[in-house]
Amino acid sequence: MKMRLPMFMSLAALVLSGATTMADPLRDEIKDQFAPIPAKAPGLPNNPATPEKLALGKMLYFDPRLSISHSLSCASCHNLGLGGTDDRPKSLGHDWQQGGRNAPTVLNSVFNLAQFWDGRAADLAEQAGGPILNPVEMGSTKPQTIDVLKGIPGYVTAFKAAFPGTSDSITYENLEKAIAVFEATLLTPEAPFDRWLSGDDKALTQNQKNGLRLFVDKGCSGCHNGVNIGGSMYAPFGVVKAPAPDVRPADDLGRAAITKSKDDDYAFKVPTLRNIALTAPYFHSGKVWDLKEAVKIMGESQLGVTLSDAETGKIVDFLNSLTGRQPDVSIPVLPALAATTPHPVP
Amino acid sequence: MKMRLPMFMSLAALVLSGATTMADPLRDEIKDQFAPIPAKAPGLPNNPATPEKLALGKMLYFDPRLSISHSLSCASCHNLGLGGTDDRPKSLGHDWQQGGRNAPTVLNSVFNLAQFWDGRAADLAEQAGGPILNPVEMGSTKPQTIDVLKGIPGYVTAFKAAFPGTSDSITYENLEKAIAVFEATLLTPEAPFDRWLSGDDKALTQNQKNGLRLFVDKGCSGCHNGVNIGGSMYAPFGVVKAPAPDVRPADDLGRAAITKSKDDDYAFKVPTLRNIALTAPYFHSGKVWDLKEAVKIMGESQLGVTLSDAETGKIVDFLNSLTGRQPDVSIPVLPALAATTPHPVP
Repeated sequence: MKMRLPMFMSLAALVLSGATTMADPLRDEIKDQFAPIPAKAPGLPNNPATPEKLALGKMLYFDPRLSISHSLSCASCHNLGLGGTDDRPKSLGHDWQQGGRNAPTVLNSVFNLAQFWDGRAADLAEQAGGPILNPVEMGSTKPQTIDVLKGIPGYVTAFKAAFPGTSDSITYENLEKAIAVFEATLLTPEAPFDRWLSGDDKALTQNQKNGLRLFVDKGCSGCHNGVNIGGSMYAPFGVVKAPAPDVRPADDLGRAAITKSKDDDYAFKVPTLRNIALTAPYFHSGKVWDLKEAVKIMGESQLGVTLSDAETGKIVDFLNSLTGRQPDVSIPVLPALAATTPHPVP
Repeated sequence: MKMRLPMFMSLAALVLSGATTMADPLRDEIKDQFAPIPAKAPGLPNNPATPEKLALGKMLYFDPRLSISHSLSCASCHNLGLGGTDDRPKSLGHDWQQGGRNAPTVLNSVFNLAQFWDGRAADLAEQAGGPILNPVEMGSTKPQTIDVLKGIPGYVTAFKAAFPGTSDSITYENLEKAIAVFEATLLTPEAPFDRWLSGDDKALTQNQKNGLRLFVDKGCSGCHNGVNIGGSMYAPFGVVKAPAPDVRPADDLGRAAITKSKDDDYAFKVPTLRNIALTAPYFHSGKVWDLKEAVKIMGESQLGVTLSDAETGKIVDFLNSLTGRQPDVSIPVLPALAATTPHPVP
C-alpha cells in the first residue's frame, strides 16, 4: 500500500502536467498565435522590481491621497475585485465628472504594446502618472502629489527603501515606476484556455473548442492574438462598417488625436480579451453590456460577417474560457497622515 | 546542544506569554477599566456567522454596485488601509456630496454600544443598511439594490449558501446581516497597550505609561474606557466649555436629533480611541488634523483642564500605543455582471 500513494501521485502529476496530451489539430494549428499568461510578473526595462519597490507601488495603487480630494485611487476605477475595471460605461472622477472612455482593465496590462485606448502612454509607468493629474480623474498636480507624499512619514521611509542611493527619492517618476512594478504583478494565469494551450485537453469544453475554431476562422484572431489575445496592435473600429454612433461616438477619433494622421481615425488599441466576461460594459464607449452583442458588433464592423446566434454563443463560450485566476491581493496598510500633511480639496 | 533549543524556546515562550510580568501598580489600578481587543470576532445575536455568510458579507462590503452609481462601496469611506476610515473631514458620496459628519472607523466597531456618531443604529446590521440608501452617500434604494443583487448570478448563489432554507434569500435584511458578520471580524488586536494590559511589561515605553497615568488622572478614562476605549456611552461635546464653532458646528445637535431631548444637545457617542493615530481628522466635524490639538480641546471642553505641551505629548504617546494589528483582508473577487443586471445611474 505504501508504494501506491507515490505512484498514484506521479500519475496525477503526469495528468496535471498535460503529459497525457493527445494530438490536437486545432491546438497544433493555433498554438503559435497565442501564449499563456505566465505565473510571474515580467521584468520592466530600467525599472527592476525589488520587494521594497513592489510594496511601495502597491500602497500607492491603493492610496486615495494621490487624488486632490483624497477619495480616489488607481483602485477606484481599476478594481481588482471587478476584473481590474469598474463595471461602469465611464468612470466617475473628480467632482463626479465622467471620463472620456471606458476604463480598460489593469490585469495583464503589462503585456500591451502601449497603454490607454489610444496608446498615448508607452508603458505602465507612463500610464500610472496620467490619471493622477487628469482634471476629470484624480485631479491633482505633480507638486501637490509630491507634497502629500513628503508629508506622510511612512512614505518618506518607503520611497527611500524602494529607491536607495538618491538624495531625493520622492519624485513623480519614482511614483510611476513603483506603481508600474506593482501593476506588472497583476496577472491572471491558469485560464481554461491557457491550460488547454499548455496541453490539458479537458480544460476546454467541446463548445468552447468550437468557439475557438470560429474565433480563428471568422478572423477575430487576426487582431486578438498573442499573450493578451489583443493589446498588440492598433485597428480602426469600423474597418468594414461604421458601428452605430452611440457605440462609436463621432467626436472621439481615437489614435488619430495622438498621431495626427487621418489614417488613424477611429483607431484604438485592440483591447485584450483576457477576463472579458468580467469587464462589461464593452468598447471604448462602454455602451454595450452584453458580450453576445459585442461579438456581433465586432463581426459586422470589423469582419463584415453576420454571426448567427449559435455562432455567437460558441464564441462567447470560448471567451468565457479566457477568465484566469484573479490576483490574490491583500489590502495594504497605508502610512498614516501627519498633522502637517496637506489636506484634501474640497 | 540539542537540549538547549527547546529550553531556549520555552524561555522565549515564557517571556512572550508575559509570565515574567512584574507587579505593576498602574496596571493593577486600571486593569478593570479596560480590556484588550480579542483576536476573534464576537458572535452577533440572531445572526450566527458561517463561512458562507462571512464570504458574502465581505463581497458586499467591497461591492460598489450597491451604490446607485456603482462607484461607491462601504470600503470607499471605511477604507481598511486607512484605519477603517477615509482621512477626510467628511466623506464624498453620491454626486460628490459631502456627508454630514466625519466617517467613524469600522474597525472594532462591533464593540460600540450603538452605531453612527449619534447612535441611531442599534447594531452593525442596522448601520450597514443606512449609507446604501442615504442620498448623500451611496444614493440607492432598497428595490434597486435588491434588483442589482438578483441580477448578478453569483450573488443568487452566494445568498442561497449564506441563508439556506428560505425561498427568497436576497433580502435587504440579509444583506445587512451578512455585512455585519464581516464587519465583526475587523478587529485590531495586539496593540502595545493591549499587550501591556495582558502582562507584557515592555510593551509600553515609560513615556506611554506616564501618558496613561495622565489619561486616567485627568479624567479621560471616565468616558474613554472599556474594550474600545470609548464607544460605550454618550456624552455632550462641551461638558465644561463649548468648543469653537468650527469644531462643534451649532447646527448639529447630535443625539438630541434622535432622542428629541434637550438634555442630549450636542451629545455624541464617545468615539473609540483605538487606532486613533490612524484616523485623522478628528471629531464629528472632522475639523482637527493634529492629535495633540484634539487632546487639548478635549481637556478644555470636557474636563476643564488646560493640558501643557508636555502633558499632551505624553497622552499622545499613550494614544499611539492603541494602534493594533490591522486586519489582513484580501480583496474579494466580486461576481460578474450579467447582461441584464440593472445599470448604474448616471
